[in-house]
Amino acid sequence: MNKKNLAILMRARMRAAANQEPLRQQQLFQPAHPNSPPQQDNVDENNSTTPERVTLKDVKEWMQASISIPTGKLEPVDANLEEFSQGYLTLDQEGRRELLLALARDYDVNRARVRDFMRQYLSLEPHGATGDQESAELEDESVLAAFHRTERNLRNALKPMYAVFFERLNERPGGLKLLAILRADLLSVLVKENIPSLRALDSYLKEKLITWLSPAALELHQITWDDSASLLEKIVAYEAVHPIRNLLDLKRRLSVGRRCFGYLHPAIPGEPLIFIEVALLKDVAKSIQEVLWDDPPIPECEATCALFYSISSTQPGLSGINLGKFLIKRVIDLLRRDMPHITTYATLSPIPGYMQWLLSKLASQIKLSKSETENMNDVSEKGSISAFRENILLPEEERMILNSAVEHGAGKSAIEIMQDLLTASEWTKSDHLLAVLKPPLMRLCARYLLKEKKRGKALDPVANFHLQNGAVIERINWLADQSEKGINQSGGIMVNYVYRLDKIDENAQSYFSTGDIHSLLPSPVS
Amino acid sequence: MNKKNLAILMRARMRAAANQEPLRQQQLFQPAHPNSPPQQDNVDENNSTTPERVTLKDVKEWMQASISIPTGKLEPVDANLEEFSQGYLTLDQEGRRELLLALARDYDVNRARVRDFMRQYLSLEPHGATGDQESAELEDESVLAAFHRTERNLRNALKPMYAVFFERLNERPGGLKLLAILRADLLSVLVKENIPSLRALDSYLKEKLITWLSPAALELHQITWDDSASLLEKIVAYEAVHPIRNLLDLKRRLSVGRRCFGYLHPAIPGEPLIFIEVALLKDVAKSIQEVLWDDPPIPECEATCALFYSISSTQPGLSGINLGKFLIKRVIDLLRRDMPHITTYATLSPIPGYMQWLLSKLASQIKLSKSETENMNDVSEKGSISAFRENILLPEEERMILNSAVEHGAGKSAIEIMQDLLTASEWTKSDHLLAVLKPPLMRLCARYLLKEKKRGKALDPVANFHLQNGAVIERINWLADQSEKGINQSGGIMVNYVYRLDKIDENAQSYFSTGDIHSLLPSPVS
Repeated sequence: MNKKNLAILMRARMRAAANQEPLRQQQLFQPAHPNSPPQQDNVDENNSTTPERVTLKDVKEWMQASISIPTGKLEPVDANLEEFSQGYLTLDQEGRRELLLALARDYDVNRARVRDFMRQYLSLEPHGATGDQESAELEDESVLAAFHRTERNLRNALKPMYAVFFERLNERPGGLKLLAILRADLLSVLVKENIPSLRALDSYLKEKLITWLSPAALELHQITWDDSASLLEKIVAYEAVHPIRNLLDLKRRLSVGRRCFGYLHPAIPGEPLIFIEVALLKDVAKSIQEVLWDDPPIPECEATCALFYSISSTQPGLSGINLGKFLIKRVIDLLRRDMPHITTYATLSPIPGYMQWLLSKLASQIKLSKSETENMNDVSEKGSISAFRENILLPEEERMILNSAVEHGAGKSAIEIMQDLLTASEWTKSDHLLAVLKPPLMRLCARYLLKEKKRGKALDPVANFHLQNGAVIERINWLADQSEKGINQSGGIMVNYVYRLDKIDENAQSYFSTGDIHSLLPSPVS
Repeated sequence: MNKKNLAILMRARMRAAANQEPLRQQQLFQPAHPNSPPQQDNVDENNSTTPERVTLKDVKEWMQASISIPTGKLEPVDANLEEFSQGYLTLDQEGRRELLLALARDYDVNRARVRDFMRQYLSLEPHGATGDQESAELEDESVLAAFHRTERNLRNALKPMYAVFFERLNERPGGLKLLAILRADLLSVLVKENIPSLRALDSYLKEKLITWLSPAALELHQITWDDSASLLEKIVAYEAVHPIRNLLDLKRRLSVGRRCFGYLHPAIPGEPLIFIEVALLKDVAKSIQEVLWDDPPIPECEATCALFYSISSTQPGLSGINLGKFLIKRVIDLLRRDMPHITTYATLSPIPGYMQWLLSKLASQIKLSKSETENMNDVSEKGSISAFRENILLPEEERMILNSAVEHGAGKSAIEIMQDLLTASEWTKSDHLLAVLKPPLMRLCARYLLKEKKRGKALDPVANFHLQNGAVIERINWLADQSEKGINQSGGIMVNYVYRLDKIDENAQSYFSTGDIHSLLPSPVS
């Protein structure tokens, strides 16, 4: 394929990618959207030889035939697995849903068998040692052997019957990719029907995928302009953070002063499961503009900072499997070795949950404040409401907003005006409003990153990702991403996380055990 | 490295390989010999930075520090794993033994925890459905969720504590290789000390290795003369069936009319885990001579037979993990696609256990026959002995041996003479003796392959390997391998297994379920 064809192809792909942007941008951290178009599934459509009329019944029968052969007794019938693999991809959403439900319900754990082994296990005497030393030791040995044997049997019995189906699929060419598609479908179904057997199916499949996608099985590949068009096309399609606008943009991200690394799995050739983009810079960048568009890049030998500015995963079915952690570590190791003059490893990251959090905070405070006014006379009610009220804005922030935004609604409170401004997004075009909103937006952003938690971990998914990898929050940057997406997600603010090589393990440990967030930001006055 | 250096290096390596030959030749099927020199462990010795004086105590502490961090709670301390990995390789055999014993005993399953979950599980009511339909369904849902939850907890509790250590090691660069070394050491210890906790450790580690080395994670690589010297050196060192004699021999095996394919794992770069050698021929070869030395090879487009003449695994620690099955399938698929004129897929295989079986059979019959003579008068004894006696030789075979080998011992029986001849090996230099021994040796070889079983499967390990992969026994060939090793293993006889593409699954299934051996050999008169 020549580069002109690539360019044409990329235009088409980029439009497709743009259409799916709301889905894509967070796919690294969240389950695929249920209405996700089945684009990923069409990988094999060109060389598919399945006849047109495959029914759900056919596919179910191939599935049953592939499972029902006992493990270790017979060779799996490859033909059934082949037919299943081809047939599954021809099913529509409803067909896949029914198939997954059948798999989850009909091929669950054999509970009678589990109970038998359990009773056997509980009847074993831990240490029946009486009599002389030697015979006691001999007895211990045989008791221990019985424990080990029953434990092995129990481990096997506790495997759901679909385990063997997954294992057999994984052994086949194309099987791992199919399993990832299967899990993506499963996650879509789970959004609507959160039933126990489907959850158990998902949890088991996820566990297996984690084992099969162990970092030892992944190959770190530097993606360059010399790579095939088919691989580069995937980078364009799956770039989830800062969409690639044109061929020049792509080339720039792969050329001097820039790096792009992907994790490839031997079973899914030519398609990185996750990739990361790096800029080699003099200083930690304060805006994405500098990274993506400011020309020209500095000579690489003058760089002292490696800036990770984008990380995208390509398989919705691998949601929740943290390959990014290992990728970042491997890339840092590689850059350290090749470029000893680089001393800072940092990111320029989006804050995808900030605006959503802030707007819902503003809305709830406005509501509370209204109830408070309405129930002025009911002292008991007032007290209980007040417990949830807080002053989101500092007095001088409130004053500035009220003073400077008179045209936006007389009689409204500062937080109401702020809500109006933020939902309309014209504020970004007015220097005056930018100046007014900067102090509260920056202060509250620091609070969001440092104080807002979910199950003891940072609420923001990107923050949680880098913190659990051992980074610290270094700096937040005003007007760092002025794209529509950047304004909508985080009011245009971006954050630098820094990986301090001598502290990565220590930071990760303390975040894991205490949830403490290491940061160089001034502690926010909330 | 230029080719002259490679040649020098190969001479050195080949001597080393020759010294280890008795160990190597069966390593595909049997645990490594306990006295195996730790050659494989030195892979990292050049870039090792470990100080000289690492003690067993140090290594144990690093191990403990790497395990004792609870899963999911904290990041593993990479530094401890790194120190362990380096330290382990500096330990001598005794040090490794003690370490493995400590690992097996101190980090076993937490049985108290298992019992707790079991009691919890057994107290769950399978179906407590009384009352109306809807509430029964709701109850079922929550009961099912409780089952799934407890099953997941039990699966976790049944993991020995060393599981997490293996998982963490596997995630590190070089970890998979270290785990293979660890298992090789473990197998060596087990030969001498077959204790339950060590057996359980081995069985668990083997299971994990099978998962991590799933064929999906392996890359099929055609090994050619263009590969690096460091990779080719490994082919020379690990060729276990027909040792590579010199550079010319190696080049021939990689050039026109020949193929060599290896399975590479991303975590063990530049070192195939297993490799197979193929000759493209007009007919199924009857002797290894034709394959290795007869010149010149035919043009590839005239070939109709792909002959697998050698398969060698390189990691003693992967003993019992059947990667060969997948390798053969992948290679057949690849050749079918690239060379449609090839219609026969066959092997020319050694029969490693034949002579050992035959000599022990002869010895036991000689012994029985002597006891019989001594107890001539004791009728009851005689009867019980006779039950084990059989006529190994047919009458005309016996006559020919007695007639033609008078000089070998007057007064001796035919089987005694046969034993003398076979243990001395001069018989192969006499046309006369060859003619005398051919009929019984060929007939008994067919019997050995077709009738001698161990747990319902073929006694011969290579036969069992190909039969379970779905091959049939096609033909046995007289004087097919006249090397010293060939004569000692199987009296020079070799066997052709054939893979009939349309019957592979069927044959494998019937062998798995019934132990029936498919063969074109005339059924042996035994």
